[in-house]
Amino acid sequence: MKTRGTSRLDLSEIGERGLIQRIRRACRPRSAGLQLGIGDDAALTTLSSPQIITCDLLIEGVHFQRRWHPWRRLGRKALSVNLSDLAAMAAVPRFALLGLGLPPKTSVAEADALRRGFLEVAEEHDVELIGGDTCASRKIILAVTVLGEQGRYPCVLRSGARPGDEIFVTGALGEAAWGLELLKRGHRSARHPAVRRLLDPTPRVKLGRRLAAYASAMIDLSDGLLTDLGHLLEESRGVAARIEAASLPLSPCFRRHFRVRGAPRGKALALAAAGGEDYELLFTAAPGQAGKLARLADETGIAITRIGQLRASRRPVIQLVGPGGAILPPPSARFEHFPERP
Amino acid sequence: MKTRGTSRLDLSEIGERGLIQRIRRACRPRSAGLQLGIGDDAALTTLSSPQIITCDLLIEGVHFQRRWHPWRRLGRKALSVNLSDLAAMAAVPRFALLGLGLPPKTSVAEADALRRGFLEVAEEHDVELIGGDTCASRKIILAVTVLGEQGRYPCVLRSGARPGDEIFVTGALGEAAWGLELLKRGHRSARHPAVRRLLDPTPRVKLGRRLAAYASAMIDLSDGLLTDLGHLLEESRGVAARIEAASLPLSPCFRRHFRVRGAPRGKALALAAAGGEDYELLFTAAPGQAGKLARLADETGIAITRIGQLRASRRPVIQLVGPGGAILPPPSARFEHFPERP
Repeated sequence: MKTRGTSRLDLSEIGERGLIQRIRRACRPRSAGLQLGIGDDAALTTLSSPQIITCDLLIEGVHFQRRWHPWRRLGRKALSVNLSDLAAMAAVPRFALLGLGLPPKTSVAEADALRRGFLEVAEEHDVELIGGDTCASRKIILAVTVLGEQGRYPCVLRSGARPGDEIFVTGALGEAAWGLELLKRGHRSARHPAVRRLLDPTPRVKLGRRLAAYASAMIDLSDGLLTDLGHLLEESRGVAARIEAASLPLSPCFRRHFRVRGAPRGKALALAAAGGEDYELLFTAAPGQAGKLARLADETGIAITRIGQLRASRRPVIQLVGPGGAILPPPSARFEHFPERP
Repeated sequence: MKTRGTSRLDLSEIGERGLIQRIRRACRPRSAGLQLGIGDDAALTTLSSPQIITCDLLIEGVHFQRRWHPWRRLGRKALSVNLSDLAAMAAVPRFALLGLGLPPKTSVAEADALRRGFLEVAEEHDVELIGGDTCASRKIILAVTVLGEQGRYPCVLRSGARPGDEIFVTGALGEAAWGLELLKRGHRSARHPAVRRLLDPTPRVKLGRRLAAYASAMIDLSDGLLTDLGHLLEESRGVAARIEAASLPLSPCFRRHFRVRGAPRGKALALAAAGGEDYELLFTAAPGQAGKLARLADETGIAITRIGQLRASRRPVIQLVGPGGAILPPPSARFEHFPERP
């Protein structure tokens, strides 16, 4: 045993204690806001009010396939998708907890890569891992909790949108869903930009904080533009949305591949309007802020695109409007966790 | 469909949205410390510092068997084991998040029972469910995060034990592990006190807060007395423990069944010293507090028993001492998540 490198062992050879020790050693407490990190029954933080808190599950076979997802990128994504929720509140993430279920046959090298990915993203966003839980599990399970504080501006809720507000989105749409299609069709290079988007999304944490100066309501795009906009409308009440298909932001690579000139149609429209997991920010803002938002986009290098407008309405409906002003049938690509059986 | 009661449907018939709506309707925000509960990208709390935070995973087939564990009790246990961690810090639990993975064939009635159990325990301890995540999963997964505040006294850590301190434990030991044995042997009545202890443990939240007036270090008993005492010694450094087998507190029913007179031996000793999941509190206190602790036990109706003492030592060893003063071999019943393969 001693002659092999530890990284070639599997978890059944180092035990739960060995796994926890490896994680703990990699986390040196450094923040002033942390009184007590990993190693006790709970962690102690000193965060100002309000504290912003969210948790998400990532389950093998449900949210990802092991054969597609390299361990390091899986660790990155587990934290990134939670940070995206805090980005959508315009909050400053500070601490994370990781509940980790791993098959006993997981090698120490694989568990290390997962941890490394998670801690890379933590460091990129000044977040500390302060606790969690580890256990054996047939499928890989990552249950991540993120805690944060308010930034310079108050948090932006889903419920603040008003009639007349304009609708904006950051970055480009539909790429992650395109990446998922590529993987499903057997594409195996994680270098393709669409695949990379799916496996290793970029949470818009810093941009989210700056958008708080302009946004009346905000949500991150995990379920797809139409679904998440629907959530925002429902929480805001009394508003309906009109989205112009021609204005949906698409990457040059996406445009080329799907031969989109002007407004996307068919498959390209379905991916952009209904594809999930882009982890961009969707927000609304009172009219007249387009100039300031354009300057913010220039400064940060992240596109901010006006895609439509809200009107007063009892029902939170969304109209998707084509280039000629025709109302298009809403494309669907929504993932339902508990699908109706045929 | 409309003619059947909703509770006879399964989750694939009400969808993720239906499930979330049912949970959300059952959670009416009522606390002054809550700015924003379920329904946005994250929840907003206003907790005083320090905030105490912990998370735990409960996975079907790993932590419980579905055929043994009624849904309501499963919901109860998922929150209780997390509250037990906060009890061991002497903290006041305030808020909970629930990451819930359920098989699509789960009936609405089963999901309702799970939620009801979770919210019962929440109400018993004045805790509010403020967020979480729901998804489909082959196995039932409960990822619970609990947030709390400091009580009247500062939090009690694992690391505060000093040479000379006496070792105490609340309640009785070994019952949950006995309950597990009964279930494994085919016992099916959840009324047996040992089975009830395992399926529906009682976190010592209020007692934990009062123990903070006396305890130098504290931990809850989830892995078993010897293992958890080992964790406490390792964090405290410079101490070793001597435990008197004859002083281990056992319930009358446990004593009768295992015919224990005086000190437990054999199986009874293994269950009491190494059996997991009792969720009692193990703590250390400077000598001379036995009288005050006896009064606290009288007042609360929960036994507090002195089971041994600490001495200075470089190595965090535990000696288990029999009635004649002989050192006993440490019994093992520890559950290892990643067991060494034969």
